Amino acid sequence: MPSRYLSFRCSVPWLILLLQALLLLRSFFGFPGVSDTYSLSNSYPEFQDVNHMVIFGFGFFLMVLRRYGFSSTGFNFLLVVLGVQCSVLAEDLLVFFRGEQNELGLESLARAFVSVTAVVISTGAVLGRANPVQLIVMTLVELTFFSASRYINETFLEVPEHLTGLHVYLFGAYFGLALASCFPEPPPGLDKNRSTPKSELFSVLGTVFVWVFWPSFNSVLPFFKMQAVLNTYLALAVSAVAAFMLSALTSKDGKFRMAQIRSAVLAGGVTVSYTAERIHQPWIAMLLGLLASAIAILGSHCVQRCFNPALKLQDTSGVHFTFGLPAVLGAVAAVVLRVVEDGIDTRWNELSRLGYDAFVYIGAFCQTICTALITGLITGLILNIKLLKAVHVSKYFDDQFYWEFPHLSVGF
Amino acid sequence: MPSRYLSFRCSVPWLILLLQALLLLRSFFGFPGVSDTYSLSNSYPEFQDVNHMVIFGFGFFLMVLRRYGFSSTGFNFLLVVLGVQCSVLAEDLLVFFRGEQNELGLESLARAFVSVTAVVISTGAVLGRANPVQLIVMTLVELTFFSASRYINETFLEVPEHLTGLHVYLFGAYFGLALASCFPEPPPGLDKNRSTPKSELFSVLGTVFVWVFWPSFNSVLPFFKMQAVLNTYLALAVSAVAAFMLSALTSKDGKFRMAQIRSAVLAGGVTVSYTAERIHQPWIAMLLGLLASAIAILGSHCVQRCFNPALKLQDTSGVHFTFGLPAVLGAVAAVVLRVVEDGIDTRWNELSRLGYDAFVYIGAFCQTICTALITGLITGLILNIKLLKAVHVSKYFDDQFYWEFPHLSVGF
Amino acid sequence: MPSRYLSFRCSVPWLILLLQALLLLRSFFGFPGVSDTYSLSNSYPEFQDVNHMVIFGFGFFLMVLRRYGFSSTGFNFLLVVLGVQCSVLAEDLLVFFRGEQNELGLESLARAFVSVTAVVISTGAVLGRANPVQLIVMTLVELTFFSASRYINETFLEVPEHLTGLHVYLFGAYFGLALASCFPEPPPGLDKNRSTPKSELFSVLGTVFVWVFWPSFNSVLPFFKMQAVLNTYLALAVSAVAAFMLSALTSKDGKFRMAQIRSAVLAGGVTVSYTAERIHQPWIAMLLGLLASAIAILGSHCVQRCFNPALKLQDTSGVHFTFGLPAVLGAVAAVVLRVVEDGIDTRWNELSRLGYDAFVYIGAFCQTICTALITGLITGLILNIKLLKAVHVSKYFDDQFYWEFPHLSVGF
Repeated sequence: MPSRYLSFRCSVPWLILLLQALLLLRSFFGFPGVSDTYSLSNSYPEFQDVNHMVIFGFGFFLMVLRRYGFSSTGFNFLLVVLGVQCSVLAEDLLVFFRGEQNELGLESLARAFVSVTAVVISTGAVLGRANPVQLIVMTLVELTFFSASRYINETFLEVPEHLTGLHVYLFGAYFGLALASCFPEPPPGLDKNRSTPKSELFSVLGTVFVWVFWPSFNSVLPFFKMQAVLNTYLALAVSAVAAFMLSALTSKDGKFRMAQIRSAVLAGGVTVSYTAERIHQPWIAMLLGLLASAIAILGSHCVQRCFNPALKLQDTSGVHFTFGLPAVLGAVAAVVLRVVEDGIDTRWNELSRLGYDAFVYIGAFCQTICTALITGLITGLILNIKLLKAVHVSKYFDDQFYWEFPHLSVGF
Repeated sequence: MPSRYLSFRCSVPWLILLLQALLLLRSFFGFPGVSDTYSLSNSYPEFQDVNHMVIFGFGFFLMVLRRYGFSSTGFNFLLVVLGVQCSVLAEDLLVFFRGEQNELGLESLARAFVSVTAVVISTGAVLGRANPVQLIVMTLVELTFFSASRYINETFLEVPEHLTGLHVYLFGAYFGLALASCFPEPPPGLDKNRSTPKSELFSVLGTVFVWVFWPSFNSVLPFFKMQAVLNTYLALAVSAVAAFMLSALTSKDGKFRMAQIRSAVLAGGVTVSYTAERIHQPWIAMLLGLLASAIAILGSHCVQRCFNPALKLQDTSGVHFTFGLPAVLGAVAAVVLRVVEDGIDTRWNELSRLGYDAFVYIGAFCQTICTALITGLITGLILNIKLLKAVHVSKYFDDQFYWEFPHLSVGF
Repeated sequence: MPSRYLSFRCSVPWLILLLQALLLLRSFFGFPGVSDTYSLSNSYPEFQDVNHMVIFGFGFFLMVLRRYGFSSTGFNFLLVVLGVQCSVLAEDLLVFFRGEQNELGLESLARAFVSVTAVVISTGAVLGRANPVQLIVMTLVELTFFSASRYINETFLEVPEHLTGLHVYLFGAYFGLALASCFPEPPPGLDKNRSTPKSELFSVLGTVFVWVFWPSFNSVLPFFKMQAVLNTYLALAVSAVAAFMLSALTSKDGKFRMAQIRSAVLAGGVTVSYTAERIHQPWIAMLLGLLASAIAILGSHCVQRCFNPALKLQDTSGVHFTFGLPAVLGAVAAVVLRVVEDGIDTRWNELSRLGYDAFVYIGAFCQTICTALITGLITGLILNIKLLKAVHVSKYFDDQFYWEFPHLSVGF
């Protein structure tokens, strides 16, 4: 299929070039000069951790498929560096609309990394089935819609600005799922979407990195950083322990399943993200970690056996139960915690206020999920038009379609 | 052997659940509220380094056996997250006995990581031969005994509190060895306990991580952190250089041996740990690094050829010469340094004081080793009772006994 | 060839021992006592990042060849720990000549890591063709000459002291190339210098580490650290995006080439290093990143097809286009930026001053390249004398020549 290759060749580089030129142009007119400082700011280790986690951790976390190692980590790298630049730009525009002055610094880059995580999660859902052109278009569209969704939450639902970014897991997972539903299913006989012990090991390597850096990630946006770190760590620790327990309990013969454990150890970090800075009792964080792990493991059974076949959905790296369901749990927990917290020091005549608060919280979450699902579906339909040269199903999950190999002995 | 599987299935998850429930309950009544802080404390990078080193570094360091990659890194992960929680609890109780108030913070978590290292080291000695139930029981018992040993050192031998934790290598190694002596030997024809170049490479990856983060690890407990970091780094650098030199010198044909080098590069960090904060002359740290490397490499020859066969001991990942012997050297060095340091500014009539000091130091080390050996032996005997369903020797060193593989092409 | 082995065995360890003894002796007389400090200095995370990047990142970055994994990472480790000690010594002597007092601290170790990078880069050029004896001699000679070149730049050309160290890429690359030209070419039929997807994956792992830690590396020496970090990050991000674009554009069928992308993503960091602290407009850093990536990818075509065959040069891991050409671009950019910057606020009668400034900058770069080429050539000739037992071309690129394998199933 030379014509397809040709068109692929024609579109990817020019698309990237166009984008990069726009970003360069923007930076020419836009970014204020960086101030001279003799020492690194306190936010440097934080920025570095998030950078490391998103590029290295997620890049290797996605390296599950046995013939898709280069693409998993390579395209993740490309999308993150492109997405961070776009996200800085998008935030810039948002700030401009508010009439404030933005400054380019490590804080804004770290915030951009948080937004880009939505893209990384969505990529996981269509892993191996979307070509680079589709992924780049997806990145742009998703970041725009995520910014829009955050803007709605901030302006109309009065969610504190620094928290809107933490809807990133929710948005990323459901955007990715809606997107994945538009891609044709791989043929049943295809065995390239399996994992091998070696590809799993690389994925474990990435997972451990993501796990270790998660407290840094969850503390980028909140004000009470120390508390966010501690609560995230506790939730992660409990969810890791519970992952092993539940994996042994739910499998035949009491054996562990690496794929489940990889998802469930991270679930605690997702669930606790939104409430991490406001939990004052360690046991709440630990309980959330336990529930998150349970929902991830039980979810993986239900989703893979009932939900996905019913909807003819293929979610390559299981973002629904790794990020989606734990994020929903986190959303519910945030509402409950808010109501309980307020409920304690509220008099009878303020009950309406309490109800209003809960309503706003629920509204923000519903709005995020709905926006994600609808825009994801639209994006999915756009990505599968002829112009973008979707990959043929027989070429799914294959590095050789995108990468030049010196010799053809591919595979782990 | 379905019945064996069944019992394994029944015990692991419930044991974990019970533990986790206890820890949750404890945290419910116990931990004081975390204080609100707007920024991360200075101890966050330190905590992160130790976290990274113990979970990622040691997890991959242990990945030597060619068919035991998942279990090496997975069980290490499980034991560390479980052990850290138990260790926080144990320290909590210790503090309670002293009548003080404990606070949950990154410092106490980092200290817990140091204690858990004893478990990680002991795991190395029985790597591939203990099942998860045995490992979890071992974790609990070992952490309890280690706390007890620290308590004795602090109370009766008046070792400064912040230093007792650094006996962790000594305790871990000899506890592990005593434990390993109770496990039946693998049959001589079994070739699953070999390494392949690929499993070695993953192990090298982990070793480099442990090496890089060791200065952070050795500076968690001491007061003079800067000095501990510098001395540890110097000792590690010299011991890395010496490892290559001695490996070439002692092998046939002057070739290097990766297994030896992996042990010896870390030996410097073990030896210098106890004295790192009190060495004022860089050359002492460098000399200790050199001696540590020498003892690790020469020890690996002696131990593997004479000591282990004589005692019918199998020390899977060589914790005796990687951690045990260098820790003994470190103990001797600590006594010598103390005596020399004191001796210089001591008058004749204070000589008895000098002898007393040396006696206390030697006593503390001997007490630690003896406690480790005795409790290790007892633990080993308990672990091999029928109730815990020890693994049959033919199933040693095999991931397939514990993990569900999608397809059976296991091995590196 | 037992005699060759024997001589190899005789020389490596003793050479290392001699060196280490000298360093120990030096530290005995030399280093001032480390001052007691209760907390880690601000430079600890910086030092840790650079340590991690040079030892882990470059160690795995070089792991390209399919049968040379142990040697790539192992020898890199050995040379770095040895080189850092020598470099501290060399700097010590330099400071002594200036009549100042040096202090051993994390800052001086971090500076030593920067110097050692020259050795790491040069090693890449002769990867798989030089034996450990040759590499150790090379390390010593190169560090000495690099110190001399820095001294000339500082004293005669009045380059600010803190910037002379950043010529490290330029010096390392051209020293390595001159060196490589003296080694005999591998026979054309040899297929051991190929990479496999698995060895590429390990190399990608290392590359991502180097990429993530590069901002820390570029900010070790400059005064305006924050600015250096931000500009380096921007340059790296743009060069990563451009790497994917240009790799697809220049290859047949529009496929990506991992080897090119690995080089080009790092090129931005090399180019911007010298000017990172003085760029006030983000778009300049981004533009430099774009140009660096372009020069690396176009350079890899020209160099590999025209330049190398014409000069009968074999540059195993492509240091010429990864570090050499981007560093030249950075040098040109530094001159241009200086002239433009000065030109703006210069009156007519100060034009001669402007010319002088440009002249000095160009002089410093030319001096560095010339010194590197000449001393590299001399070192190459020395390394290939009979005494050092050069490796026979049939044993090139082979781990088995240097490492003892438990079983002979080598290769990725």
